[in-house]
Amino acid sequence: MESLKERIVNNGRALNETVLKVDSFLNHQVDAKLMYEMGTYFKEYFKNHGITRILTIESSGIAPTVMTALQMNLPMVILKKQQSKILNGEVYQTTVHSFTKVMDYELTLSKNYISSDDKILIIDDFLANGEAALGAARLVEMAGAKVAGIGIVIEKSFQVGRKKLDEKGYDVYSLARISKLGKDLIEFID
Amino acid sequence: MESLKERIVNNGRALNETVLKVDSFLNHQVDAKLMYEMGTYFKEYFKNHGITRILTIESSGIAPTVMTALQMNLPMVILKKQQSKILNGEVYQTTVHSFTKVMDYELTLSKNYISSDDKILIIDDFLANGEAALGAARLVEMAGAKVAGIGIVIEKSFQVGRKKLDEKGYDVYSLARISKLGKDLIEFID
Repeated sequence: MESLKERIVNNGRALNETVLKVDSFLNHQVDAKLMYEMGTYFKEYFKNHGITRILTIESSGIAPTVMTALQMNLPMVILKKQQSKILNGEVYQTTVHSFTKVMDYELTLSKNYISSDDKILIIDDFLANGEAALGAARLVEMAGAKVAGIGIVIEKSFQVGRKKLDEKGYDVYSLARISKLGKDLIEFID
Repeated sequence: MESLKERIVNNGRALNETVLKVDSFLNHQVDAKLMYEMGTYFKEYFKNHGITRILTIESSGIAPTVMTALQMNLPMVILKKQQSKILNGEVYQTTVHSFTKVMDYELTLSKNYISSDDKILIIDDFLANGEAALGAARLVEMAGAKVAGIGIVIEKSFQVGRKKLDEKGYDVYSLARISKLGKDLIEFID
């Protein structure tokens, strides 16, 4: 997605070899038109995958995901991050480790909003170590549903997440793939 | 907004005299078309208020807000909730008490994404005690900007939030105003 790459180059900021700040248009301030355009790209790629429902993880994935759900005319579900474990029969839960925040959290999905017939598209803002996406996929599979695709806004291809998702056989589509970051350096794949 | 009231009646669930669960279309599962329609209503009400930027609070406010920002062609900013206080010169921060979760959190806004010229629309999913909306308004005013309006998806009019915002002189527009909740009882104003 060329317009996204341009925004990353013009408004993103590489702090070091792993951290890319995009809080001027994606994580803190949000460009709604750009989010809508992301939805158009995700719809185009996944339109023949038989998707029945879209999942995302709070909170930076919500804006691009709701724009995708609008254009694909599908329900979306926001997976909640909870720091304390609330176990009851009404939810699926899995523990996810955040390398960025150096903490664990519980990713939670109500059993009311997924069924074993579902073909799920998972959308998230960043793919780095892949722990969040893999956690979302575990919830889908706990429900007996199928992960029909994973859509990522910005993939840091030099980290292990993409490889882990590929090895699981998931169909991963990233709008921008970054091969290298460094102080004031951003390089893309392709 | 009649379609929202219908959804609340048909798919919402009053657990007791204060708690309304709407996680089938707003808080957990999200109906993107309904969010878009909310944006149309907010735009219609606030179109002549000279709004320059829209703020919301993570994470349930994001979906209706990004749909409003899209239709009003304005930037939006997601105020972050942080449990630990990170004080530095680059952000405005204020402490908000959540009566629901019985905890305090720090609402945070980068100084990069607001200016003293801004006329701000604040949008949130629920208005109950008003603490979150008042916290957002404090951040706006710390920046020397103006709160030009407050848009609420569901107002629990029997709680004190609406009164507090009215007393401050804010222009509050709520898509649905609930006068009374009880076990399996939901009553609206009008």
